Amino acid sequence: MSPATRPHEDELVARYFRPLATDPGAFRLGDDCATLSPPDGTDLVLKTDAVAAGIHFFADDPWDLVAKKALRVNLSDLAAKGARPLGYLLSIALPADWREDQLAAFSRGLAEDQAAFDVSLLGGDTIRSPDGLVVSITVLGGLPRDTIVRRGGARPGDVLYVSGTLGDSALGLALRLDPTKADAWSLSSDERDHLARRYLLPEPRLPLAEAVRRHASASMDISDGLGLDLTRMTRVSKVTATVETARLPLSTAARRALGADAELIGRIVGGGDDYEILAAIPPSAVAGFEAEARAAGVAVTPVGTVGAADTPPSFLAPDGTALVLGTSGFAHF
Amino acid sequence: MSPATRPHEDELVARYFRPLATDPGAFRLGDDCATLSPPDGTDLVLKTDAVAAGIHFFADDPWDLVAKKALRVNLSDLAAKGARPLGYLLSIALPADWREDQLAAFSRGLAEDQAAFDVSLLGGDTIRSPDGLVVSITVLGGLPRDTIVRRGGARPGDVLYVSGTLGDSALGLALRLDPTKADAWSLSSDERDHLARRYLLPEPRLPLAEAVRRHASASMDISDGLGLDLTRMTRVSKVTATVETARLPLSTAARRALGADAELIGRIVGGGDDYEILAAIPPSAVAGFEAEARAAGVAVTPVGTVGAADTPPSFLAPDGTALVLGTSGFAHF
Repeated sequence: MSPATRPHEDELVARYFRPLATDPGAFRLGDDCATLSPPDGTDLVLKTDAVAAGIHFFADDPWDLVAKKALRVNLSDLAAKGARPLGYLLSIALPADWREDQLAAFSRGLAEDQAAFDVSLLGGDTIRSPDGLVVSITVLGGLPRDTIVRRGGARPGDVLYVSGTLGDSALGLALRLDPTKADAWSLSSDERDHLARRYLLPEPRLPLAEAVRRHASASMDISDGLGLDLTRMTRVSKVTATVETARLPLSTAARRALGADAELIGRIVGGGDDYEILAAIPPSAVAGFEAEARAAGVAVTPVGTVGAADTPPSFLAPDGTALVLGTSGFAHF
Repeated sequence: MSPATRPHEDELVARYFRPLATDPGAFRLGDDCATLSPPDGTDLVLKTDAVAAGIHFFADDPWDLVAKKALRVNLSDLAAKGARPLGYLLSIALPADWREDQLAAFSRGLAEDQAAFDVSLLGGDTIRSPDGLVVSITVLGGLPRDTIVRRGGARPGDVLYVSGTLGDSALGLALRLDPTKADAWSLSSDERDHLARRYLLPEPRLPLAEAVRRHASASMDISDGLGLDLTRMTRVSKVTATVETARLPLSTAARRALGADAELIGRIVGGGDDYEILAAIPPSAVAGFEAEARAAGVAVTPVGTVGAADTPPSFLAPDGTALVLGTSGFAHF
């Protein structure tokens, strides 16, 4: 609350954030607001997601990766809705002991991801944090009017697909908290690095967005674990679902860890931070969805089916018995 | 980083935030993203601004006022750009010791301001803060394509107007930090309360937005003090300006304080947190602007003029000498 001023906010913005604001509507961050002129007939898709030191990332994580994760968890939601990113706004609360090299890394991380995902900074705010770094990003996406794919459209008979692999991030976090698990799970150093990286850096499935938009009856991104997120999808769709856990797509590393400790299936299904897409595809659209996913270069795997009852989903073990999971999901709270 | 889950995030959202999400595009906060369908021909105006405990407000401020301030500082920017609010997204980082009555107050404050300013919650994210409360809001406004009023359009001969009164918030903060000043400044209890309230609760000048859009050649909101913000406007407009400080609109309370301590002019011009509009009006538009401001019920006062030189603005004392201000503005950083 000190009225003492640090006169450098304008310079800080000029140095680290203006280079990211390449959209003409960002006015080079030199005005109070940005503008965006969506093409006529566009629906905007809006998402805000925040990450905080000590909660969503470790206080000593490199800031380029923190920046990328903060952007990517938002882009992941756009992908799940079938939308194309139009731009983003950034609100960053800096700890008192921030260093210029950290902010330079933050900016560099965003620049790399802007190039990777064809999106740019529209505006932002830089404040001091009461304690650790807090990054809040709002993304804006666009799609043709009335074509958004919602959570609530799953219908009995739909096939449930997930993109990529599940559980890597949760296992990466477990390793981070207890590095001795790498040996307990018989992981190679490459496998350990794979899991660690997947925790630090999710992969938003934007290349899959158009296939989702064209074919899915329901879709969402898996951020709190398949268990909890599928429960949310079935609840709002007023359906149920059955997932065969033996069909869940796993990385080599996750498969090896699961081989060493069968109980890890709970963490894989319930751990969260996957940022993969969960989509319900009508049987008639399965072939088209799979073909377009293949063309987009994103692996998709059928893991179960949607049923008619308005009850929570079931997760079946390889022997056909229902798995009772230790945790129903990972709420970041 | 604890993987421990609080399973209550969904319930918390349902209880305190869903009632605010009245726009159909918010999907009652039950989907990953919100949608917004701007009318064809609309330019979106985007702003994100964050406030943090201990930096922008006192940790013991009532949460309904914190919520209102967080929303209002963003709405103020829309007003300055001539835009109408379309909706907002909220990112809230809660301290570990948050209480339900605080969150209820936060929600109530937003509900009251939603009604006052005809805007509603489109989406949000609730996370745990590393320490104190941090609130980041992104507002979306709209206006007819290519009619945004920018900072950089001020032209020689334009008349500089400010809305409302200046300095109240800075004086209110000074009082908060040192309550004995109320006596030193000979303030009545009403006057003291007025200044304290203006610090806690800015008044976004949305009713003035249309007059600004129709008549101003440049406009911005005054958040870091007239001194710094006018300097920004003249710099990007490549002009200068002269302000007669005797013409600055002051409340009775501020006028009394200034009478007791003439040095306070520095705080009034440089203190910030005014959230009033600074607009440059071409001479031919002055009559129309004043008439529309009057019709909108917002006081506007001419305080100076724009000059041709590309130099920093001057602030003239009543005797015509240039004031050298102790501080050129209040950067929240």
